[in-house]
Amino acid sequence: MSPRYTALVASLPATVPFVGPETAERERGAPFIARLGANENGFGPSPRVIEAMRQAAGEQWKYGDAQSHDLKQALAQKHGVSPDNIIIGEGIDGLLGYLVRLVVEPGDAVVTSEGAYPTFNYHVAGFGGVLHKVPYRDDHEDPAALMDKAREMQAKLVYLANPDNPMGTWHDAATLEAALERVPEGTLFVLDEAYVDFAPDGTAPRIDARDERVIRFRTFSKAYGLAGARVGYAIAAKGLVAAFDKVRNHFGMNRAAQIGALAALEDAAYLQDITNKVAAARDRIARIAADNGLSALPSATNFVTIDCGADGDFARRVLAETVKRGVFIRMPFVAPQDRCIRVSTGPEAELDAFARVLPEALAAARAPGQVGTGG
Amino acid sequence: MSPRYTALVASLPATVPFVGPETAERERGAPFIARLGANENGFGPSPRVIEAMRQAAGEQWKYGDAQSHDLKQALAQKHGVSPDNIIIGEGIDGLLGYLVRLVVEPGDAVVTSEGAYPTFNYHVAGFGGVLHKVPYRDDHEDPAALMDKAREMQAKLVYLANPDNPMGTWHDAATLEAALERVPEGTLFVLDEAYVDFAPDGTAPRIDARDERVIRFRTFSKAYGLAGARVGYAIAAKGLVAAFDKVRNHFGMNRAAQIGALAALEDAAYLQDITNKVAAARDRIARIAADNGLSALPSATNFVTIDCGADGDFARRVLAETVKRGVFIRMPFVAPQDRCIRVSTGPEAELDAFARVLPEALAAARAPGQVGTGG
Repeated sequence: MSPRYTALVASLPATVPFVGPETAERERGAPFIARLGANENGFGPSPRVIEAMRQAAGEQWKYGDAQSHDLKQALAQKHGVSPDNIIIGEGIDGLLGYLVRLVVEPGDAVVTSEGAYPTFNYHVAGFGGVLHKVPYRDDHEDPAALMDKAREMQAKLVYLANPDNPMGTWHDAATLEAALERVPEGTLFVLDEAYVDFAPDGTAPRIDARDERVIRFRTFSKAYGLAGARVGYAIAAKGLVAAFDKVRNHFGMNRAAQIGALAALEDAAYLQDITNKVAAARDRIARIAADNGLSALPSATNFVTIDCGADGDFARRVLAETVKRGVFIRMPFVAPQDRCIRVSTGPEAELDAFARVLPEALAAARAPGQVGTGG
Repeated sequence: MSPRYTALVASLPATVPFVGPETAERERGAPFIARLGANENGFGPSPRVIEAMRQAAGEQWKYGDAQSHDLKQALAQKHGVSPDNIIIGEGIDGLLGYLVRLVVEPGDAVVTSEGAYPTFNYHVAGFGGVLHKVPYRDDHEDPAALMDKAREMQAKLVYLANPDNPMGTWHDAATLEAALERVPEGTLFVLDEAYVDFAPDGTAPRIDARDERVIRFRTFSKAYGLAGARVGYAIAAKGLVAAFDKVRNHFGMNRAAQIGALAALEDAAYLQDITNKVAAARDRIARIAADNGLSALPSATNFVTIDCGADGDFARRVLAETVKRGVFIRMPFVAPQDRCIRVSTGPEAELDAFARVLPEALAAARAPGQVGTGG
C-alpha cells in the first residue's frame, strides 16, 4: 500500500508554480536563444561575487553556517536594524513556505491579489489555507482593497508585492505606509520587496523593524544576480524572526551561496551599475514594443510587461509563438492582466533576439486559424 | 500583537538540532584547529567537482533546474532505477522535512531509536508527530525492536540509519532485508543511508525501487564531500516520489550544487580514493584511542565513536576539554551511548591535533573538581 498521507496532502495536486526554462527547453528539444522569462539577472553577479564563490568551491565540504552570522551582520548594518530582526533562508520562496507554516492552519483565510505570485499561493494551499483574492486596479495591486478584504476575512496573512510581479507596477512609500496603518488586528502584512532594488528612490516604505504587523522580504536573486544560489531574507520583529527557528531547515543554506551574498552586499558600485543596465534594458524593451505597435507598462522591476492590445487568447498566442522561436518569456496568468506578455531585462544580444522574433510572433499570432496553446 | 501562530507552532520551542561549528567558534572566540565534529569530509570534494562548481559560479544568475533533470538521470543510471523513483532535495535534512510533512499529522505515531538522528526528530515534532523510541542494542540500532514498536504504535514512519549515526555501527544487507519484510502495513520504513558509501560491500540491502514500504535516503554531503552544497536524494516508489511535488520548494536547489553533484557522480575513482582515506583515518583514530587506553567502536562510516570507559558525565567532560583545546568533536546525546565521544575522520594534520589534545583532555576530565559542561 502507499504511505498514509495526511488528509491535506491527499487532497493536494502534484503541481509546480512555474514551468522552469530547462523543462521548457527539454520539451521543445532545443535550448533557448534568449532567457527572458524568469526575471533572472542576465547581466550576472558582480565579478567579485563570482570570484568569492569560486574561492568557496573547495570549502563546500563544510556545512554552511546554520546562523548565517556574517551575512546577517552585514544585512543588519545595511538596513540599520538588529541582527535579531533578520531571518535568512533558501530564497524568498523557502522563507514564504516557512512563514505560511508558522501561521496557517487548514481553513485559515489568506488574502492576495488575483494573479499575484503563484508560489505564495502554492505554499498557502500546501498548508490548507483558503485564499481570498482581490482584483488588480488599473494593473496595480490594490493595497486598500487588500486590507479591506483581510479585515472582512479576518485573514492571517495579506500578501502584497511592491513593486508588483507580474505587472512591474508599483506604489510609492507613502501608499505603503498608509496600507500598513490599515492592517487589521490579527493579520500579518507580507510585503514582498524582491524587486525594490530596481524601483525609484522613495518606493520602499519606512517601517520600524520592530513593527509586529509586517514582515518584508528581500532577495539576492534579482538585482544581485544570484537566483541560482537561493538566498533570501526577511526583516521582521524579533519574536517572528525567532519563530522561524522552530521550523526551518537550520543547516539548509548553501555555504558558497552565503559567501557570495556577503560579497554581493560589499559591491555597491556593481549594484548601481546593474540597476542602470536594467533601466536601459527596460527602455529598450519598451521601444521594441512600440516599434511593433504595442505599449509597455511602466516598470520598477527588472522586467517589462507589454500590453498586446487584445485578449488573453491573443497574448497566449504571442507568447507561444515567441517561445517557439527560442525566446523564453512568460505572461500574467489571469484576466485582464493576461492581455500582456512579460519580458525580463537582459543583455543586448538577448534583447536583439526578442526584437527579431517579436514581429514574427505577432504576425503568426494574428494569422487566421491560429490556436492559442498557452505557455 | 504578534502573529497568530498555529496552535502547533505556539507549542514548539525555538530550537536547533545541532550547534554548528561556526556558532561554537564564535562562542569560544577562536577558530577550531581541527573540524572533526560534524561528520563532514575534510578530504574535500574531487578536484573535478571543485572545477565544475568554479565554472558554474558565473551561471548562478540562473535559477537551478526545478526538476534536477540531469542529476536525476545520472542517479537513475547509477542505481538502475527509473528517474521517476528519485527525488532530489536540499540535503537529506530537507527531504526528511518534506517526507514528514507528507505523512505526519498532529498526534501521529513515529518510531525511531533513542539517541538516533535529532534532525529527524526535529521534523517529526515540527509537524506534531509523537515520537516513540526504542533503545539501542549493544550500540546498534535494533531493527526487530523498531518494527515491533512500529506495529504496536501503528506508526506512520519508522526511521533507521544504516550505518548508524552517532555510533558508526551497521547491519548487513540480510538483516535489513529481513527488517523490510517486517514493516507493518501502513508504516513507511525510512532508511537513511547517508553513510553507506563508507560501509563494507554487502551493507546496502537489495530493495526494489517500486517497493511502497520503504524510502531510502542518500547524500552528497558525506563521501562526495559536498555538505555545504545541500544535495540529497531518496529512492522510492513512483507515487511517493510524485507526492514530494505537492509540497517541495520546486526551485529550491542551488544551481552550482546540482552541477557539482553531477560531476561528483562521474568521478568514481575519487570516491574510491576517499573511502580508502576514510578507512585509513578510522584506523588512525582507533589507534589514538588505544594509545590513550580507550576503545574505538568498529565503524562503517566516516567517523569513529570512542568509548571513554565511564559514564556520560565523564564523556561530556572529555568532550568539553577537547573542544576547549580547539578540536571540534561531538558525542551521542543519550545513555548509555553517551559514554562515548564521536570523532569524524579527516586529514592527517587534523588527526594529529586530536592525538595531541586527547591526552590533555582526558587528564583534565579526570582531575578532581572537574565539572561536566556538555558540548
